[in-house]
Amino acid sequence: MALDRLIERIVATQNPTVAGLDPKLDYLPSYLKEEAFARHGKNLAGAAAAILTYNKALVDALCDIVPAVKPQLAYYEMYGVEGVRTFYETVAYAKEKGMFVIADGKRNDIGTTMEAYATAHLGEVEVEGEMFTPFGSDALTVNGYLGSDGVKPLLNVCEKLDKGIFVLVKTSNPSSGELQDEHIGDRTVYEVMGSMCEEWGKALPGKYGYSGVGAVVGATYPEQLAELRKKLPHTFFLVPGYGAQGGGAKDVAGAFDARGLGAIVNSSRGILCAWKKENCDERDFTGAARREAIRMRDDIVSVSGKASL
Amino acid sequence: MALDRLIERIVATQNPTVAGLDPKLDYLPSYLKEEAFARHGKNLAGAAAAILTYNKALVDALCDIVPAVKPQLAYYEMYGVEGVRTFYETVAYAKEKGMFVIADGKRNDIGTTMEAYATAHLGEVEVEGEMFTPFGSDALTVNGYLGSDGVKPLLNVCEKLDKGIFVLVKTSNPSSGELQDEHIGDRTVYEVMGSMCEEWGKALPGKYGYSGVGAVVGATYPEQLAELRKKLPHTFFLVPGYGAQGGGAKDVAGAFDARGLGAIVNSSRGILCAWKKENCDERDFTGAARREAIRMRDDIVSVSGKASL
Repeated sequence: MALDRLIERIVATQNPTVAGLDPKLDYLPSYLKEEAFARHGKNLAGAAAAILTYNKALVDALCDIVPAVKPQLAYYEMYGVEGVRTFYETVAYAKEKGMFVIADGKRNDIGTTMEAYATAHLGEVEVEGEMFTPFGSDALTVNGYLGSDGVKPLLNVCEKLDKGIFVLVKTSNPSSGELQDEHIGDRTVYEVMGSMCEEWGKALPGKYGYSGVGAVVGATYPEQLAELRKKLPHTFFLVPGYGAQGGGAKDVAGAFDARGLGAIVNSSRGILCAWKKENCDERDFTGAARREAIRMRDDIVSVSGKASL
Repeated sequence: MALDRLIERIVATQNPTVAGLDPKLDYLPSYLKEEAFARHGKNLAGAAAAILTYNKALVDALCDIVPAVKPQLAYYEMYGVEGVRTFYETVAYAKEKGMFVIADGKRNDIGTTMEAYATAHLGEVEVEGEMFTPFGSDALTVNGYLGSDGVKPLLNVCEKLDKGIFVLVKTSNPSSGELQDEHIGDRTVYEVMGSMCEEWGKALPGKYGYSGVGAVVGATYPEQLAELRKKLPHTFFLVPGYGAQGGGAKDVAGAFDARGLGAIVNSSRGILCAWKKENCDERDFTGAARREAIRMRDDIVSVSGKASL
């Protein structure tokens, strides 16, 4: 199952973190934008080209030390069709460089429509007897509000093509509790969703105890994170909310098991905008990203311990 | 507010239905595919070109009698970047022909990421001081599992650019009850989500009593649909599940108010595949779609009554 591949890369790099590629034009060094606008014009194509160059340089700077990237689809759709092309190229480039790619799309629908999303982001589509890969990520984030009909169509594709999913359980935002913390009987909504993940995951058992159905659980709710780690022993966590959203290493400590596994912690702005925070030469944006990725790795490993299979 | 524009078109056409553009290659007449493959090759570009020709022909056949179309993003993403280009072109063409366009993406995220989705599908993005329209639909479907942080970023864009959203409340699929029918205190999860829609909608009041925040409520749950119509007096409903999913006209009767307003009922496969069901000449696929759209309109109006402002 695909999350086995993620876990193996985490152990190989000794780094349970993922770099979120959520590029806004404001995050890019100006020389990079000027070059792209000179070639393509000051338009969506120019913006998309600048972002692709930026992403590739970041992948080059991170691929030997960070196991995974998580491009957030919203930031690519924001630049229209050309932006979506940059998403496609980014996924392909990161995979070529050996990184595990999590498409952060929080997709959700039912039946054949959810199959279409599974095909789009993880699978292959048939055109006149030939198979094509529309986007080809290794894993996809999913919103489970629609229930099993919205998740089961993914499981076939995951099994067939060795892919995984991460279902939103307890999100990192301040208002996540409006629905997720409400009680259904003696359990919260997020606990109900979490136990559905354990159930769905039975169809995709993994070699290292974690299934192909992971969960998104925010770093900003450390108690719930530790509680869920205990209650969901087969569910690997994708943990947003570290850094810019306020979570620190101690907040994510409870996400890990005794082997230093069980979770991968995301940082987006912290890495993307490291050159701004360092206030270094903008041409050193990749150096700054790498330094921040190493700092974050060491910070997280200080609480997770060494990762072993 | 954007749903006012939708309501005005419903009254102008006397037709509270929307045609779902969820094209699979299987649904297309073979002559159309052959033409596209001859020009572009048997690949994603060929598939996307065939679908665009099909969609445009359907829009031409329906635009004077059906107020709105609802392209489902999954079916476009399934054909990769070229598929997403077909989505863009379909939205533009339907708008040019005067139709109201609901992008069915069920997008969800938080803060600046949700702003990016709002920009992508409803708004405008700035590139070096100039504004560009990435996809430019009139409304977007949204999943509210993340709470207010996932919905509020849309409201600004809706207010500024006269757009609307539809939040998933009670979906049409068999397993929708796994989470949505569970009880939080004395209310179900879908009732809680519904009352959040009423609350969010206060920021986008409409001329005809319905706000810019609508709700998705399935035709397959007629009792809940009628119950929600009473409980959510300012929330306009987008109703999937008619036809292929099993809902009939009597099932959606409770979605309408005394003015024949309050809901728009979707049909996708019923209209898209009408030529297959009729077993007519495949070159008459637009004629068959129009005949089915008229049949559906008359069926729904038999329960909703005349629509008036």
